[in-house]
Amino acid sequence: MAPRPRALLAMDPVFLHQLFPEPLMRRLSAVLDFDPEFIARDYTDPAAKAALAEAEVVVSSWGAPLLADDVLAEAPKLKAVLHAAGTVKWIIGKAGWERGLAVSSSSGANALPVAEYTLAAILLAGKGIFQLREDFRKERTFTLGYVHPEVGNFGRTIGLVGASKIGRRVAELLRPFDFTVLLADPYVDEAEATALGAELVALDDLAARADIVSVHAPDLPETEHLINADRLALMRDGTVVVNTARGRLVDTDALTAEVLSGRLAAVIDVTHPEPLPAHSPLYDLPNVFLTPHVAGSHGNELSRMGLFMVEDAERYAAGEPLLHRVDPTTLERQA
Amino acid sequence: MAPRPRALLAMDPVFLHQLFPEPLMRRLSAVLDFDPEFIARDYTDPAAKAALAEAEVVVSSWGAPLLADDVLAEAPKLKAVLHAAGTVKWIIGKAGWERGLAVSSSSGANALPVAEYTLAAILLAGKGIFQLREDFRKERTFTLGYVHPEVGNFGRTIGLVGASKIGRRVAELLRPFDFTVLLADPYVDEAEATALGAELVALDDLAARADIVSVHAPDLPETEHLINADRLALMRDGTVVVNTARGRLVDTDALTAEVLSGRLAAVIDVTHPEPLPAHSPLYDLPNVFLTPHVAGSHGNELSRMGLFMVEDAERYAAGEPLLHRVDPTTLERQA
Repeated sequence: MAPRPRALLAMDPVFLHQLFPEPLMRRLSAVLDFDPEFIARDYTDPAAKAALAEAEVVVSSWGAPLLADDVLAEAPKLKAVLHAAGTVKWIIGKAGWERGLAVSSSSGANALPVAEYTLAAILLAGKGIFQLREDFRKERTFTLGYVHPEVGNFGRTIGLVGASKIGRRVAELLRPFDFTVLLADPYVDEAEATALGAELVALDDLAARADIVSVHAPDLPETEHLINADRLALMRDGTVVVNTARGRLVDTDALTAEVLSGRLAAVIDVTHPEPLPAHSPLYDLPNVFLTPHVAGSHGNELSRMGLFMVEDAERYAAGEPLLHRVDPTTLERQA
Repeated sequence: MAPRPRALLAMDPVFLHQLFPEPLMRRLSAVLDFDPEFIARDYTDPAAKAALAEAEVVVSSWGAPLLADDVLAEAPKLKAVLHAAGTVKWIIGKAGWERGLAVSSSSGANALPVAEYTLAAILLAGKGIFQLREDFRKERTFTLGYVHPEVGNFGRTIGLVGASKIGRRVAELLRPFDFTVLLADPYVDEAEATALGAELVALDDLAARADIVSVHAPDLPETEHLINADRLALMRDGTVVVNTARGRLVDTDALTAEVLSGRLAAVIDVTHPEPLPAHSPLYDLPNVFLTPHVAGSHGNELSRMGLFMVEDAERYAAGEPLLHRVDPTTLERQA
């Protein structure tokens, strides 16, 4: 048996056991040689520096320090970073990409719970359930047999903003339902949209046509306030805005004005600022379902991120290609 | 072209245009000969009686009067009842089945929205979203990066009580997710459960093993309080009870005690009594998501029930077998 590659853990220790419950930790130890008791938080720390100097693999997650160019210069043996979390933007410096580090990310595992939350939000919002629940709570009665004419999921149009991993998974999950799916994404062509079961449209058209607009774009300088007052104004009365991506993608003030007037509704897991100030009306409006940034991997879902990473560690140790390898050429348009 | 069969509308008129928007009404008129302005509500009414005496087909929905045996005796030409709603139990009397009426129901169309609500409830409840939303609303802050260890949809066990049309559709919709599905149904064997992607278990085992218990059984004398205090006591702490079926299936007092203590959680669209009295704690508890009997066809979903019925009217007129024919031998174990 070949010697196991030397590795180093780097992350906020609070996540370690949630990412790698005992059975996963055993699988990781079987293919990588690392000290499970030592976790690097800061590469200027002498012990971390010494461990990094010997490491072929960094096993990282949220809270891992940046492998800045000067840090990397003192890690001559480093060949791979296996990141049990989403974006690696804040983990790998320029020199790391230039050296050709093999980098794997569990962002695919993180896409699943976000897409699941989004699907559920679309199904309930399409039936007007969030608002009906709040009305029921207030009125404490209803007329059996009365049909709310404006609700229902038969023939709704769902607009997906961004064919990210999450947007693609949402498109896939929407297939069993009687929906028309629109997609706006500057990097996708018609054939690819069709393969996703969606019609490719411009963002303004999507805003005007969709009953539900769900945002799955990356947080970049050019996507700030992608959903601004003008785009909100294009939406028809009753349209629901779903944001599980990043708060900055939506102009909070403009959205607040539209939901306060009752013209639009929203399901929001992320905001800017985050959390919203205590006086924000978004907490209590009956047409807003606001949750505390929990759509992504949470609770037992962290161990799925750990699992994706351990599977790539096993591939690395066996000399096989990484399944969740990060392509540095697409980084600048990713979250 | 053969003459169109003579037909009669029988339902609460409030539903007519929601069931049959103009394009559907045109399709219905193309294959059946009926007066769209006349709707039977009571067969003792002379006009309704006269119309029924000439009718080969009754097009019914919610609020249609019962075709009691004495009524049917004066409808010698009647051959078919096409019901644009769910159960036909309250529409067809004993003599109707003995005569061999062709009976079609849109219960399959009604199964879809209930299953969609249920799927969404399972996905959000599994991530603890309903409770997290209420906590956030109260506390108006959260710690970014804090992971709630008890939530998450990775590897949950979902228990479906009843392989009704709805239960089967829910099982199908659960396939893309990382769930184990249990099924309890006295009329299903192991092979059938396996084909549904589920493990067949006894109801008590299901209660003890499932993270989420979703009820899809019919409302029958023998299913009253199917989920009673004893079965609730079998459930582990944190189990979520989902009821989109009928209120009587769950012992409301027993469930209320379990959610008041915080031991269990619930997503409930139907209750007994319905609505609950205004003082019921189920309206406001953070671990209960209570909605006003809206999981079934609502708003635009009524037109899908109309569509299913119109498609069977077209088959009937063309001499083809009905797709949504009701089998009278299974009626006694159906909702």
